[in-house]
Amino acid sequence: MPSPHFDLVITGGTLVTMSAKMEIVENAVIGIADGRIARVGSHLSLSADRVIDAGGGLILPGLINTHTHLPMVCFRGLADDLPLMAWLNHHIFPMEARFVNRQMAYDGALLAIAEMILSGTTTCCDGYFFENQIAQAALDCGMRAVAAQGFADFATPDHPQYEKMMAAAERFVERWLPHAPMITPAFFCHSPYTCSPRTLVNVKAAAREAGILYLTHLLENRDEIGMIEKRYGRKPVQHLHHLGVLDDRTVAVHCNWTTPEDIELFADLGVRVSHNPSSSMKLAAGIAPVPLMLEKGIAVGLGTDGAASNNDLDMFQEMDLSAKLHKATLLDPTVMSAETVLKMATIDGARVLGLDRLIGSIEAGKQADIIILDLNQPHLTPLYNPYSQIVYAARGADVKASIIGGKPVMENRRLLTIDLQDAMRNVGEIAAHIQAENQSTIRTSPVDVMTP
Amino acid sequence: MPSPHFDLVITGGTLVTMSAKMEIVENAVIGIADGRIARVGSHLSLSADRVIDAGGGLILPGLINTHTHLPMVCFRGLADDLPLMAWLNHHIFPMEARFVNRQMAYDGALLAIAEMILSGTTTCCDGYFFENQIAQAALDCGMRAVAAQGFADFATPDHPQYEKMMAAAERFVERWLPHAPMITPAFFCHSPYTCSPRTLVNVKAAAREAGILYLTHLLENRDEIGMIEKRYGRKPVQHLHHLGVLDDRTVAVHCNWTTPEDIELFADLGVRVSHNPSSSMKLAAGIAPVPLMLEKGIAVGLGTDGAASNNDLDMFQEMDLSAKLHKATLLDPTVMSAETVLKMATIDGARVLGLDRLIGSIEAGKQADIIILDLNQPHLTPLYNPYSQIVYAARGADVKASIIGGKPVMENRRLLTIDLQDAMRNVGEIAAHIQAENQSTIRTSPVDVMTP
Repeated sequence: MPSPHFDLVITGGTLVTMSAKMEIVENAVIGIADGRIARVGSHLSLSADRVIDAGGGLILPGLINTHTHLPMVCFRGLADDLPLMAWLNHHIFPMEARFVNRQMAYDGALLAIAEMILSGTTTCCDGYFFENQIAQAALDCGMRAVAAQGFADFATPDHPQYEKMMAAAERFVERWLPHAPMITPAFFCHSPYTCSPRTLVNVKAAAREAGILYLTHLLENRDEIGMIEKRYGRKPVQHLHHLGVLDDRTVAVHCNWTTPEDIELFADLGVRVSHNPSSSMKLAAGIAPVPLMLEKGIAVGLGTDGAASNNDLDMFQEMDLSAKLHKATLLDPTVMSAETVLKMATIDGARVLGLDRLIGSIEAGKQADIIILDLNQPHLTPLYNPYSQIVYAARGADVKASIIGGKPVMENRRLLTIDLQDAMRNVGEIAAHIQAENQSTIRTSPVDVMTP
Repeated sequence: MPSPHFDLVITGGTLVTMSAKMEIVENAVIGIADGRIARVGSHLSLSADRVIDAGGGLILPGLINTHTHLPMVCFRGLADDLPLMAWLNHHIFPMEARFVNRQMAYDGALLAIAEMILSGTTTCCDGYFFENQIAQAALDCGMRAVAAQGFADFATPDHPQYEKMMAAAERFVERWLPHAPMITPAFFCHSPYTCSPRTLVNVKAAAREAGILYLTHLLENRDEIGMIEKRYGRKPVQHLHHLGVLDDRTVAVHCNWTTPEDIELFADLGVRVSHNPSSSMKLAAGIAPVPLMLEKGIAVGLGTDGAASNNDLDMFQEMDLSAKLHKATLLDPTVMSAETVLKMATIDGARVLGLDRLIGSIEAGKQADIIILDLNQPHLTPLYNPYSQIVYAARGADVKASIIGGKPVMENRRLLTIDLQDAMRNVGEIAAHIQAENQSTIRTSPVDVMTP
């Protein structure tokens, strides 16, 4: 019987599968056909159109960023060391009202995708305005994305009239569903404090009808508790539960102030969580009780949040930080082990997004979303434990190849689907406009959504 | 009058001086002669033997790592997600007893220096065994170092008989003092729990006589408080104060459990502090009250600690982490601003090491320890605020040139004073021996220094 032929074979490295058995395969060989992983083994000889030699590096599933706002790279470093609400109301929201448009969304997303690919992310879950442009940017770059159309009860840059939002959202889903599994449409209600109960309920109903994911920021900041309780007579999680929007297709983002009771409820309902340590630490928003969530079996993924509050999109940093943050604050070095954290950045992130049958591990049948880490570097020498090395020592810049759906999108640090100089120049021009008007905009037109 | 001639000129970038006035100079030109910064300006035309074009990047002082144990790169990733005392007593100390020798100290230090130079560190303060070898490695590589000979009251790998330590330490100082300012000798008492009062006092007396710095781990872990109180009837800071070893040439490393009273005492006595957030977070050792220390005017620098507990030596990560950690735990996003943190990694680190007249800022008369950041990258685009970009978005891998004492040691990511492949191979061979004996060594010979 002739040996089967593959489109692409990856060879010459140590494979960290992130399968249920957490196998690590020395001298791994991965055969890829039709964008999927068709064969995984050791010391195999496979015939293929193309071979990528891992050069003794680590081969692992591409990282999954469960929460970001890609175009916010345009605001990276614009306003730092500020409280969340001042940052949002006096900087970010006014800037967004003034500068977010179709072109900015596309150009910003393109640069963000370049940054993500160069740092080992192969799937992102984005929620922003002009989500069509963001999904288009992902499609153009060969980036896998959950693209979540945003909703809020103030005039957003893409839909100054709220009434038009829902109709546009339905068109959004129709447009992008055919692009699965590269693009997966979803809905994103900004938060319980910026979305009315009517919006939260209607958007969830539409998400259920379309069979898509529903995301919301939840309990990012402590102030949200009193605000929601005052308005609606219930604390945020109970408010959402009362509205019937919490289920196993709901992703609650941040969850910094969830109580043990909230966590029990999430576990019962199957609610998933996106943990964004960098952003929540930088904004001093709070620290999510992730070890308790994991103990209760909740699917928790990692996210970078937008680059305006991080200030980068490097999931390797997010892994390192999430491992260290919870050890430090619980005074327990055994929580959030390297293995646990790498799961959060791969297979558990896939679970959060409802894509764990497709991505998150390197196993036959899954989409070929694969990255290769260059171990031939001083800070990755010596190698005793691949999980420790990935979480505690590796950085995004160590990724030397990135393959999404079987297609190489980066090799030897060169992007293959994006003109990087163009992408940086375009965002540089947008930033020049923002910089020029920054002071006056900040001083004169705060949009205070917290006191409607 | 003819224009003066320089050995080296750096041009074509934005200069972040870190001077007292925190000047930022566009189109900076820096003239270097005899290893020192001779001229700093904007739009100057200087004649020089060599010109380094910063290519539109950021030019800043080289970073100062105030605490590390360089040869511990050989143990990177060997034992993670463990409590500090289990990690020390059942893994690190037995491994050190078995594998630390002259060659390991030199080879490990060389690889660590390669990693540091590639990530923007130009001065490190090391404390370990076989410090002669480490100082030699620094000298050979053109790395500026404070090399601190270690002391502890158990048989150390370099001095099985404690009595020989002091004589050796005196020879150490004599040998290295002539190499200032590249190498500055110092003494390092491991901790109040591994050093007897006699050792602490005698070493401090010798340090005073030699006019050199005295370092000690202090209050890294909470257990230390009860242990020292039980043995000596005083809490650790009071114990050291009672022994008379705390003064303005003493650097207390970690200080995770210092009380407001301890901090007042440090401020009164001029004691300096090295803050190592990554290591203390990963070991769940505790969180130093750094914002309070800064408020009281204490000089606080940043350190990576050894690579076995970090697991890298990237000071950019240390900056990002220290900014975010204290915001998160104090729920105050205004503490530890990007400017504050960059000061800690540069001029304040120099103050901690008593070298602030020589290094830590880019000003005429100082040693030319300079790094250049490559801004032409997606995660560093756009640029609104250099401090934010350096602390929150940049990584060690973004350093494209590194100059120490006027001598380029890295350009375009290529090391100029170290054979990197050799250095990695040498440590790889050491690691193979460690790996082979790891299990049995750990299981059979724990060195429990906590219960003497």
